[in-house]
Amino acid sequence: MGIIGSTIKPFKATAFKAGEDFYDVTQEDIAGKWAVFFFYPADFTFVCPTELEDMGEKYEMLQSMGFEVFGVSTDTHFSHKAWHDTSDKIGKIKFPFLGDQMHTLANNFGVLREDSGLADRATFVVDPDGVIQIMEITCEGVGRNANELTRKIKAAQYVRANPGQVCPAAWEEGSDTLAPSLDLVGKI
Amino acid sequence: MGIIGSTIKPFKATAFKAGEDFYDVTQEDIAGKWAVFFFYPADFTFVCPTELEDMGEKYEMLQSMGFEVFGVSTDTHFSHKAWHDTSDKIGKIKFPFLGDQMHTLANNFGVLREDSGLADRATFVVDPDGVIQIMEITCEGVGRNANELTRKIKAAQYVRANPGQVCPAAWEEGSDTLAPSLDLVGKI
Amino acid sequence: MGIIGSTIKPFKATAFKAGEDFYDVTQEDIAGKWAVFFFYPADFTFVCPTELEDMGEKYEMLQSMGFEVFGVSTDTHFSHKAWHDTSDKIGKIKFPFLGDQMHTLANNFGVLREDSGLADRATFVVDPDGVIQIMEITCEGVGRNANELTRKIKAAQYVRANPGQVCPAAWEEGSDTLAPSLDLVGKI
Amino acid sequence: MGIIGSTIKPFKATAFKAGEDFYDVTQEDIAGKWAVFFFYPADFTFVCPTELEDMGEKYEMLQSMGFEVFGVSTDTHFSHKAWHDTSDKIGKIKFPFLGDQMHTLANNFGVLREDSGLADRATFVVDPDGVIQIMEITCEGVGRNANELTRKIKAAQYVRANPGQVCPAAWEEGSDTLAPSLDLVGKI
Amino acid sequence: MGIIGSTIKPFKATAFKAGEDFYDVTQEDIAGKWAVFFFYPADFTFVCPTELEDMGEKYEMLQSMGFEVFGVSTDTHFSHKAWHDTSDKIGKIKFPFLGDQMHTLANNFGVLREDSGLADRATFVVDPDGVIQIMEITCEGVGRNANELTRKIKAAQYVRANPGQVCPAAWEEGSDTLAPSLDLVGKI
Amino acid sequence: MGIIGSTIKPFKATAFKAGEDFYDVTQEDIAGKWAVFFFYPADFTFVCPTELEDMGEKYEMLQSMGFEVFGVSTDTHFSHKAWHDTSDKIGKIKFPFLGDQMHTLANNFGVLREDSGLADRATFVVDPDGVIQIMEITCEGVGRNANELTRKIKAAQYVRANPGQVCPAAWEEGSDTLAPSLDLVGKI
Amino acid sequence: MGIIGSTIKPFKATAFKAGEDFYDVTQEDIAGKWAVFFFYPADFTFVCPTELEDMGEKYEMLQSMGFEVFGVSTDTHFSHKAWHDTSDKIGKIKFPFLGDQMHTLANNFGVLREDSGLADRATFVVDPDGVIQIMEITCEGVGRNANELTRKIKAAQYVRANPGQVCPAAWEEGSDTLAPSLDLVGKI
Amino acid sequence: MGIIGSTIKPFKATAFKAGEDFYDVTQEDIAGKWAVFFFYPADFTFVCPTELEDMGEKYEMLQSMGFEVFGVSTDTHFSHKAWHDTSDKIGKIKFPFLGDQMHTLANNFGVLREDSGLADRATFVVDPDGVIQIMEITCEGVGRNANELTRKIKAAQYVRANPGQVCPAAWEEGSDTLAPSLDLVGKI
Amino acid sequence: MGIIGSTIKPFKATAFKAGEDFYDVTQEDIAGKWAVFFFYPADFTFVCPTELEDMGEKYEMLQSMGFEVFGVSTDTHFSHKAWHDTSDKIGKIKFPFLGDQMHTLANNFGVLREDSGLADRATFVVDPDGVIQIMEITCEGVGRNANELTRKIKAAQYVRANPGQVCPAAWEEGSDTLAPSLDLVGKI
Amino acid sequence: MGIIGSTIKPFKATAFKAGEDFYDVTQEDIAGKWAVFFFYPADFTFVCPTELEDMGEKYEMLQSMGFEVFGVSTDTHFSHKAWHDTSDKIGKIKFPFLGDQMHTLANNFGVLREDSGLADRATFVVDPDGVIQIMEITCEGVGRNANELTRKIKAAQYVRANPGQVCPAAWEEGSDTLAPSLDLVGKI
Repeated sequence: MGIIGSTIKPFKATAFKAGEDFYDVTQEDIAGKWAVFFFYPADFTFVCPTELEDMGEKYEMLQSMGFEVFGVSTDTHFSHKAWHDTSDKIGKIKFPFLGDQMHTLANNFGVLREDSGLADRATFVVDPDGVIQIMEITCEGVGRNANELTRKIKAAQYVRANPGQVCPAAWEEGSDTLAPSLDLVGKI
Repeated sequence: MGIIGSTIKPFKATAFKAGEDFYDVTQEDIAGKWAVFFFYPADFTFVCPTELEDMGEKYEMLQSMGFEVFGVSTDTHFSHKAWHDTSDKIGKIKFPFLGDQMHTLANNFGVLREDSGLADRATFVVDPDGVIQIMEITCEGVGRNANELTRKIKAAQYVRANPGQVCPAAWEEGSDTLAPSLDLVGKI
Repeated sequence: MGIIGSTIKPFKATAFKAGEDFYDVTQEDIAGKWAVFFFYPADFTFVCPTELEDMGEKYEMLQSMGFEVFGVSTDTHFSHKAWHDTSDKIGKIKFPFLGDQMHTLANNFGVLREDSGLADRATFVVDPDGVIQIMEITCEGVGRNANELTRKIKAAQYVRANPGQVCPAAWEEGSDTLAPSLDLVGKI
Repeated sequence: MGIIGSTIKPFKATAFKAGEDFYDVTQEDIAGKWAVFFFYPADFTFVCPTELEDMGEKYEMLQSMGFEVFGVSTDTHFSHKAWHDTSDKIGKIKFPFLGDQMHTLANNFGVLREDSGLADRATFVVDPDGVIQIMEITCEGVGRNANELTRKIKAAQYVRANPGQVCPAAWEEGSDTLAPSLDLVGKI
Repeated sequence: MGIIGSTIKPFKATAFKAGEDFYDVTQEDIAGKWAVFFFYPADFTFVCPTELEDMGEKYEMLQSMGFEVFGVSTDTHFSHKAWHDTSDKIGKIKFPFLGDQMHTLANNFGVLREDSGLADRATFVVDPDGVIQIMEITCEGVGRNANELTRKIKAAQYVRANPGQVCPAAWEEGSDTLAPSLDLVGKI
Repeated sequence: MGIIGSTIKPFKATAFKAGEDFYDVTQEDIAGKWAVFFFYPADFTFVCPTELEDMGEKYEMLQSMGFEVFGVSTDTHFSHKAWHDTSDKIGKIKFPFLGDQMHTLANNFGVLREDSGLADRATFVVDPDGVIQIMEITCEGVGRNANELTRKIKAAQYVRANPGQVCPAAWEEGSDTLAPSLDLVGKI
Repeated sequence: MGIIGSTIKPFKATAFKAGEDFYDVTQEDIAGKWAVFFFYPADFTFVCPTELEDMGEKYEMLQSMGFEVFGVSTDTHFSHKAWHDTSDKIGKIKFPFLGDQMHTLANNFGVLREDSGLADRATFVVDPDGVIQIMEITCEGVGRNANELTRKIKAAQYVRANPGQVCPAAWEEGSDTLAPSLDLVGKI
Repeated sequence: MGIIGSTIKPFKATAFKAGEDFYDVTQEDIAGKWAVFFFYPADFTFVCPTELEDMGEKYEMLQSMGFEVFGVSTDTHFSHKAWHDTSDKIGKIKFPFLGDQMHTLANNFGVLREDSGLADRATFVVDPDGVIQIMEITCEGVGRNANELTRKIKAAQYVRANPGQVCPAAWEEGSDTLAPSLDLVGKI
Repeated sequence: MGIIGSTIKPFKATAFKAGEDFYDVTQEDIAGKWAVFFFYPADFTFVCPTELEDMGEKYEMLQSMGFEVFGVSTDTHFSHKAWHDTSDKIGKIKFPFLGDQMHTLANNFGVLREDSGLADRATFVVDPDGVIQIMEITCEGVGRNANELTRKIKAAQYVRANPGQVCPAAWEEGSDTLAPSLDLVGKI
Repeated sequence: MGIIGSTIKPFKATAFKAGEDFYDVTQEDIAGKWAVFFFYPADFTFVCPTELEDMGEKYEMLQSMGFEVFGVSTDTHFSHKAWHDTSDKIGKIKFPFLGDQMHTLANNFGVLREDSGLADRATFVVDPDGVIQIMEITCEGVGRNANELTRKIKAAQYVRANPGQVCPAAWEEGSDTLAPSLDLVGKI
């Protein structure tokens, strides 16, 4: 079985969220909701804050669409808080960060770099059944794009909500979709 | 080892390319070049032609950047040719298609759907050393976006060409990059 | 245990049949009926259409004898439909084609060519108990003969219907049969 | 690997041939020649003599085409001689019979019925490289047809002698053949 | 455990007996009776008929003593019948022959010659409990002696019928036997 | 491989022979000679002395034919000597006795009764190549017959000396033998 | 666990005792009694009779103390009787001898000499619970001493009967014993 | 292999000997000499000092016969020295004590009581080839006897020095010995 | 799992305590109490008495805090008593010593030096739940410090008694402690 | 083998040291030097800074004694730098911190808390041969004491420099040491 279509594995991690006390998160806490796991290599580094800031700007909209978003690195929740307290970019972010110093999440999603103990620059979108629907990884030094992620998230929600419809390449919210049928075989 | 940073595994497949006789392709044929493996589920189906057409429009530019692009499904090269001969959208595409009816490539890249014998809707960008730098998979029904792929490809080429520089989130060709240094730790 | 006399293994495949919507076929759908599994290497190729056309001409008669006939290759049902829509010879055929892109049937019957992912040019006749009674395989480039297959099918049905009778070499419907007995031992 | 295209396994058996002393046969004796292995269940039984007689009438022609033919059962060479000496039909046959009481050949070709220690009613055509090109098995009680076997043998020899040509369904010696090419894909 | 004193293993074989239809024999058919298994290498050979004829002459007497006698070779029951029909010596024999073409009996009693697929020239006497009491094997070319076998069979029956008595060397029916006792230790 | 035709396994045992000092015997001491291993259960018991006396009377003749004879039980050579010194029947015997208290010989020949630590009443004839040619075992209480053993020994020597000749059932020295040939198949 | 303090393993052996019929002995027959197992290499040998005679002279006394004594070698009970009937020294002995030709006892007590199949010159004293309390072995050629064995047996019985008392070195019946206590630690 | 006749295993232990500094002893230090290993449970206990004192009185004589004697317990060499310094009986002993707190020697000789970590009350006599010739173990509370040990030691030395002679039961230095021969078998 | 935080394993050892009879101690005897296991290499040696004396002076205070203290070496309880009776420093100590000659405790706590059979110079503090809270080991020749141990013991008791409080470096009884909270993250 | 006396395992980690660029440290960098590995749970937490500050005050002295000191947690070197830049206590520390986010060091020294991915509060002193000489661990909430650690370090250096001398309990630099000798056994 590939990654897409598989169910997320159990985990338990301590979260830091601005303005709240530390709290634990497990797979049960996101059952019935959409979720984004947004992995990055390490607190206090370089590309990460721009990506996290970019993602942070979508958080309100994603929440309104029924999503939770988690920033994840192999740092502790103590470190996450310290970064939040000292960085302008990170200090503005409202979504929670998970401390994955046990490497559980990075291993569960297959994105632990074994030679450094850090996570890949990887994004996973999980549906309300805990099934991974969208994923993306870029190499070190290449930043992701929250706009494109949002485009795909909207398509995935549309497809789930409208059985029998599919979204063509580069589909944007409001554009036409396709309805597959026997007659269309070989006709597109 | 995760996928990003790993070297592609050996393969051999027969290619169909418009206007040429069938020919074999192996991992040796792309040594020293950049390559995109663009997987899709099946010939003669629905979302795929829109994505392939979208990708086809970038082919000339990607070639000029030193890239080869392969469409890959678990259909045969005979089927690829028949689709090309009968579909308007596919008939316009100039990049080669690989026949993966033995499932070698889909297994090598971990994107075979075992319950249907079809490949995921997955993209892999491979650098001239045969190392995977960027990947993306979307669920059935959600089309990819060739513009965003091109953006990331340019960032990956930039980073390779400019050691010591990294591209922030949503970077576009020509924008500013970052140069990591000890002094920047915790300052972004 | 050899092939002849063994029971077919479970399978599930999607069928294309002219004028009908795609539908699934399993071993349970042929329980109680005779069936012919007519494997060929690939859609859109060369010897195959002549053999399939030859077989197609017997379909009405075989149906009247209680048979179902399946064309089988490792192509998808989408490809089968596309071939039907574009080939004169295939377009005339009324029996269903099974999409075996997962290689289940080709492996079940031991006719997958592992170095190409295609099936042998093989025929299997299965009785109403799911037991294989007749089989034949020819190498690439040698076409089968639907007349001879029909002759053997009739003999197999005759033997099943008339316990105690056997059909001698090159027996044709209506010719004499033999009734084995102790007295005949060493006398023929 | 399926049966067709595989190389025969080593064997050693004692042969009876009318008018000669017993002699041993191994796979080396047929290297460089075409051969037919014509299995049948047992000496002194019922369908077998009609099939062997039918085959015997083709022996001269097959010899002229460069073939050797072997009748094979799990009886001894002593039994083969005794059958030859007492049966009119068998007494006329000029090709050799192999004693397979050790079950080596029946196991090599996968046609031993384990619950009775007898061979299937199976035919194998082997080319001068020792590779199996054509095979056929029928259930107990259904006789084979030497005319059809001869037709397929001629086709196999034709294809070997004329690379680039293939024989369509029900091809007879002298009929048209096909020359596969890219242009024919999807055109037959 | 040695052979003597061991219980015979299960078997099933088809028997030919002059004047009767073929029938199956298993170990259960001889429960409660004495039995002789008289193995020989092959039908239609040389020493065997003289031994079988020699044994055949004792059959009536052994039957009256409660014995069944089986001739056993790795030939089929068809071959046994054909031999019976064509050989003067074998044609006179009234005891049944078992077809052991599956090698079950020859393996059960440890007398299969693996390099030829034939049985040794071996005799086993089995008591009504299925326990082997007497055995003998001679090399190829040395015939057995039915008189001596009969002598030992009578001694074995005598000992079973008369607990506390033993038969000295070369004992013949009616001669003196010995009654072991503590007083005889070291006195014979 | 069965017993007949197998080569004896290595052994070392201490022998007692009337009028000589104890000495060791191994398989090398009988290389190039015929030998009889005459097993019996125990010194100082009942059937054994009659069998040993019967065998002892043939010793001179067997020696003249190139044979050595060994009495073998699981008693020690000390016990053998004590029995010889105190028993009239045993005191007359001139062939050596082997002490097999380690059970090596009884295990080598497969005749150890594991529930009592005693040997079967078993005879083995070994040819000058160390190959077992004739064997016989009788149950407890049934004495063997030295005359019959001698008959078979002569036949075995005759067959070895006259390749191409075989001895029919109950053959006695000087009687006719048979010369197998193709023409005799099925004629005896 | 060492030997001393371990429980004897199950055994079954046939005993010879002067003036009685052969009978079986098992570990259950000595439950609740003291027992001496007096192993020696072989009947009819040299040191053994002097040791057995020496031990025989203590038998009456040991019986009165609640002991049974067993002479044990790997000879049979038949051999033991024959030795008793022919040797002056052995003829006087009244305790039973066990036939250990299966090597069960010698293996149970760890005293089988594997290169000769004979037992060591070993003595074991077993208490009424089946636990070994005293043991001794000497090499070949060195005789044991029944007086010393008796001395130790008496000490063992004394200690069992008088909990809290121990017997010092070279203690003789009637001498002083010691009562261990905390105050004596380091004071003797 | 039993204990008697086996070679001692390698060991290394620190020795305390009155009037000397601590030193290490290994199996190499006793090569070519006779040795006694005199195990006892623990320093500062009860029976042990009487046995050690008893043994100590023989030390001078045993030294003159070419022996070394070792007291062995699972205490350390520090403890041995402390016992020597504080106990009258132990303070007189001149032979060395080995510290076996690693349990090597007790395990090598099979006398470790696993439930207490202490050694049995066991004696082993080792010849100049390192082979164990005599052993003895008594249960807790039963003291050994240095006189009897000395008697057996002398017999063992006599037998080694006089091949062909054996010492009968309870032999004392200067008494008659036996010379085994064939003529004596069964005569003693 | 590391050592700290793990539960002690079951053990049973015999204790010597001044003025009491020997008695057994198991893990159950310290359930509900604090305990110190104070390992040292051997009785009658050099650094050990100074450390034990140092520790002995804290015993009364530790008892008043709810502690039991055990001195542990691989010597026996007999040896512990003898040392107590002869050493001034040890003679003053009131806490019990455990005899660990079976090495159970040294192995349980991972402090057995395998090349000498002695324990490390190691201290373990166990809380009333049997969980190890503090440990320390020094190399041979470096003595521990009972004052520092007492300081840490007091801190451990304080922390257990005051959930939410922690003791900073070099904390002494009565000094300030810290109360961790989210606000303090990164502020100390 | 216990921890004390074992050699440290290979490792590689990135170090942060105030005023220097990041650099890698391996076991080879401390070969020939003394080293202290000072583990603590996490950056930005509570007890840790007091312990690290306490240790930091000894750094200059320890450097002059030939030591290197490493702070180690499972945080990254990025995090270590960020902590250093924002904490007053940590900002004063001059020794390097190792980033152990791969858990290599924590596992090597056996101090990883598997349920939290953090290290124990553990100290290890390693000599110039890479051998661990002193270790200490305290539970969560109990701070260590740099004075006591320094005392033990000095003792370990003294013992290494002065073979034959040992330091008694609570030894301070300049106090008396002991010279072990046979005469002192049991005298301290």
